[in-house]
Amino acid sequence: MTTTENLLQTLQTEIEQTSYGESPAELYEPIRYIMALGGKRFRPLLTLLSASIYTDDLKNILKPAIAVEVFHNFTLMHDDIMDKAPLRRGKLTVHEKWNANTAILSGDVMLIRAYDLLIDIKKEDLRNVLIRFNKTASEVCEGQQLDMNFETRWNVTEEEYIDMIRLKTSVLLGFALELGGILGGADMEAAQLLYEAGESMGIGFQLKDDLLDVYGDPAKFGKQVGGDIIANKKTFLLIEALSKAEGTIAAELNEWISAETFDKEEKVNAVRGIYDTLGIRALTEEKINSYFSKGIDCLERLSVPYERKKNLLEFVHQLVEREQ
Amino acid sequence: MTTTENLLQTLQTEIEQTSYGESPAELYEPIRYIMALGGKRFRPLLTLLSASIYTDDLKNILKPAIAVEVFHNFTLMHDDIMDKAPLRRGKLTVHEKWNANTAILSGDVMLIRAYDLLIDIKKEDLRNVLIRFNKTASEVCEGQQLDMNFETRWNVTEEEYIDMIRLKTSVLLGFALELGGILGGADMEAAQLLYEAGESMGIGFQLKDDLLDVYGDPAKFGKQVGGDIIANKKTFLLIEALSKAEGTIAAELNEWISAETFDKEEKVNAVRGIYDTLGIRALTEEKINSYFSKGIDCLERLSVPYERKKNLLEFVHQLVEREQ
Repeated sequence: MTTTENLLQTLQTEIEQTSYGESPAELYEPIRYIMALGGKRFRPLLTLLSASIYTDDLKNILKPAIAVEVFHNFTLMHDDIMDKAPLRRGKLTVHEKWNANTAILSGDVMLIRAYDLLIDIKKEDLRNVLIRFNKTASEVCEGQQLDMNFETRWNVTEEEYIDMIRLKTSVLLGFALELGGILGGADMEAAQLLYEAGESMGIGFQLKDDLLDVYGDPAKFGKQVGGDIIANKKTFLLIEALSKAEGTIAAELNEWISAETFDKEEKVNAVRGIYDTLGIRALTEEKINSYFSKGIDCLERLSVPYERKKNLLEFVHQLVEREQ
Repeated sequence: MTTTENLLQTLQTEIEQTSYGESPAELYEPIRYIMALGGKRFRPLLTLLSASIYTDDLKNILKPAIAVEVFHNFTLMHDDIMDKAPLRRGKLTVHEKWNANTAILSGDVMLIRAYDLLIDIKKEDLRNVLIRFNKTASEVCEGQQLDMNFETRWNVTEEEYIDMIRLKTSVLLGFALELGGILGGADMEAAQLLYEAGESMGIGFQLKDDLLDVYGDPAKFGKQVGGDIIANKKTFLLIEALSKAEGTIAAELNEWISAETFDKEEKVNAVRGIYDTLGIRALTEEKINSYFSKGIDCLERLSVPYERKKNLLEFVHQLVEREQ
C-alpha cells in the first residue's frame, strides 16, 4: 500500500502538471499562480485516502481529486475579492496582484475547469457525482453568503454559526471523502458515512481554527495569535461569549468590541480573559471533540478491515491533533 | 408540429417555474431578478428548434435549453460587474441594485445551476454534452477577457476582433444548436454542422449589431443610434476604419476619438461620414452576409426533409433580417 506521504507527492506532481489553458494569458496565469501558492492539499488527499479504502488503483482518482482542489481554490479566489483580502498564504491575492475583474473571470474559468476534471469519471458514476458536486458547490456559496451576512449582525446564534461553517467549509470535506468512496467502489451507505465523517470533522476543524487563534501556541501557530479578536471576527468563541456574558463582563466585552483605537496586545489579553472567566475554552474544546468523535465514529463504522482504512484514520488523527 | 411562437411560450413558462434556490435570499433573489428581466430567449429557442428537426418530443430538452439561458445570464451578471454597466434591459444591473459581492456570488451559483439543469440528460449523451459545454463556457470567458484587453489596445486587427466575438458570443449560439441536435438524436456530423451554423451566424449577428449602431433606423433600433461611436467602442466598423484611413481622414478620425469634450450628434455624424467615405458600410454588410450565408448553408446541408428544419430556418431568417 502506498503511504500518505507518497500520495501527497503524487498529488503535488499531478497538480503541477495539470493544464488550465493558455490564451489569453491574463485569464489563465492567475489560475497557475493560485494553484502554485501551495496549501496543504488535504482535500484531494482525503479523496485519495478515502478511495484507497476500496481500491489500490488510484490513477483514475487523481483528476477528480484535483477537481476538488481546483474548486476549493476557485472559492478562495472569489472569496478574497469579496473579503478584500490583501494576502493569501503570504503572497498577494489575485485581485491585488492583477485586479478584481481578472479575479472574477479567472475564478469563473476555474469553476468550469473543476467540472472538466470530473469528466472522465466512469459513466455509471458521473451523474451521481455531479449531482453531489453541484449540491456541495452551491452550499459552499451559501456558506460564504451567510458569512458575509453575519458581518453586520450581532445576534448570530451558535446554531446559525455552526450551519454557516458547515456550508462554507465542511460540506466540501464531506464531498472530498464521499467522492473518493464512490470512485473507489463504496456502496451508497458507505459513501454516505464518508460524507458525514468529513462534514463532522470539518466543523471540528473550523472550531479548532477559532480556538487556536485565541489559545494557540505562538511558536507553533502559523498566524498572529489573537488576529480574530483584534478584527472582532465573529468566531464560535465570540458568539458564545456574547451569548453568555452578563452585567459588567458584557459591558467590558462590548467596550472592547466597540473600541476604535486600542493596544492590540491589551485587547487580545482582555478578551481572552473574558473567555477564560466565561469558560469558553472548555466549552469550545468540548464541542470540537464531539464533532471529531462523531466524524471518527463514522469512519470506524465503515465495514472494511482496519488495515484498509488505517491510512485515512491516521491522517485524520494528525489533522485532529494539529496545533497550527 | 409546434409553432415557434408556442415553443417560446413554453420556454417562458418553464423559465418562470424553474427554481434557483431559496436560502439565503441574498444569494438567490438576484438570480430570479436577472432571469425575469426578459430578453429574447433566443438561445434556448435555438436549442428547441434544433432538437425539433429530429424529434417531436421536446419535453426532455426544456431543462437543458434553459441551462443555456441560465449560463448566458450568468455571463451577463459577471460581465456587467467587469464593464461597470449601470443598466441591463432598462433595469438596474445586479451589482448596482445589490452590490458587486452579491453579483459575484450569485453569478457563481448560477453557473453551478446551469450544470445542474444539464444533469438529467441521458447517460449516453451526458459526458459528450458536458465536454462541449465546458469548452464553450471556457471560450466565452476567453472572449470576455479578450474584449477587456482590446479596450486599451488601438492596433486590434480584423482577425483578432472576429475571433473575440466568435468566443464571446458565437460559440454559445453554436453550442445551443448543437445541444438541441445531440439531444434530439442527430448524428455527430449533423451536430457539428449545427454548431458551425450557430457559430457563423453568431458572428454575423454581432457584426450586424455593430452596423445597426451606426446605420440603424432610429425609429426601429432599440438603443441610441451612434452609442458605440460616442463611446469609442472598438467595433468592426471602427477597426476597419482605423486600418483603412490615411492622411487627413486618419487625422480627422483620431481627432474625434481623442476628443474629450464634443457634441454627441456632431461626433456621430462626423464618424459616420468617415465610415461612408471609406466604404465601411458596404464592407461590413458584405462580411455579415458571408457569415449568414455560411451559417444557413450549414443548415441546408443537414440531410433531413425540408419540413423538419422549416421552423428553424424561418426563425433564423427572421433573426438575419431584424433591424433592432
